[in-house]
Amino acid sequence: MSAGVPKPGRADAPSSPAAAPAGDWIGQLRWNDAGLVAAIAQDAASGTVLMLAWMNREALELTVASGRAVYWSRSRGRLWRKGEESGNFQIVREIRLDCDGDAVLLQVEQEGGVACHTGRESCFYNRLDDARWIAVEPVLIDPRRLYR
Amino acid sequence: MSAGVPKPGRADAPSSPAAAPAGDWIGQLRWNDAGLVAAIAQDAASGTVLMLAWMNREALELTVASGRAVYWSRSRGRLWRKGEESGNFQIVREIRLDCDGDAVLLQVEQEGGVACHTGRESCFYNRLDDARWIAVEPVLIDPRRLYR
Repeated sequence: MSAGVPKPGRADAPSSPAAAPAGDWIGQLRWNDAGLVAAIAQDAASGTVLMLAWMNREALELTVASGRAVYWSRSRGRLWRKGEESGNFQIVREIRLDCDGDAVLLQVEQEGGVACHTGRESCFYNRLDDARWIAVEPVLIDPRRLYR
Repeated sequence: MSAGVPKPGRADAPSSPAAAPAGDWIGQLRWNDAGLVAAIAQDAASGTVLMLAWMNREALELTVASGRAVYWSRSRGRLWRKGEESGNFQIVREIRLDCDGDAVLLQVEQEGGVACHTGRESCFYNRLDDARWIAVEPVLIDPRRLYR
């Protein structure tokens, strides 16, 4: 997130294997005051940015252990196994950490091709166009079919 | 962010032009308690996710008005015109808003090809590999040359 002024010793820490004994990878994350890091899910094949969500330590550990994206739902105040209701799981192919350790980027295979609860591929379907937000992505699956 | 259970009337609001008179686009964002929304910058040509930063209302308005990415630096507590120190501006080609209005996705042309203060293309250069974060992206520009 801080692609700005270098922060000596901090921004580089996550990239130094010497600073990270195997197994201590989780200790290098910088959780916010709520104990969360931002998590971006990107389609591994198309490169489409699908969604931005949040993870606490348990969600990230479960994601790594299971190979499926698990987030922390701030609105529901509980772990959110992506696809638990819609069946549209995210198979995680790669996890990246950013330079200051407070955001992760997941390369995923999106089951069903739909990440958004509106039935669209991506949650980022509103494009700013002449001072309006216009929905420019098609609804691929009726949300009523996603959440029976 | 909440690609989970539908939130009637909220998640869909940003996507409805009828709900947004021209000029009121900014009013549809859902700022967090600090008055910020998350902002993902993606390379418009390669699809590489470059960084995750934050914007307050002024930063987003300045981004739209100038066509160059302006963020809010939480560490410095001030507006951060991306590239103001390094010269590596981000030319913004498109702005998307997500389904619940609290995250934006910028399609950018990254001046200098380097978004990260470490001199790498992307801030997400640490890949989780066998319980270690390994820096897998090359340093393209010596940071000492970015910040003289």
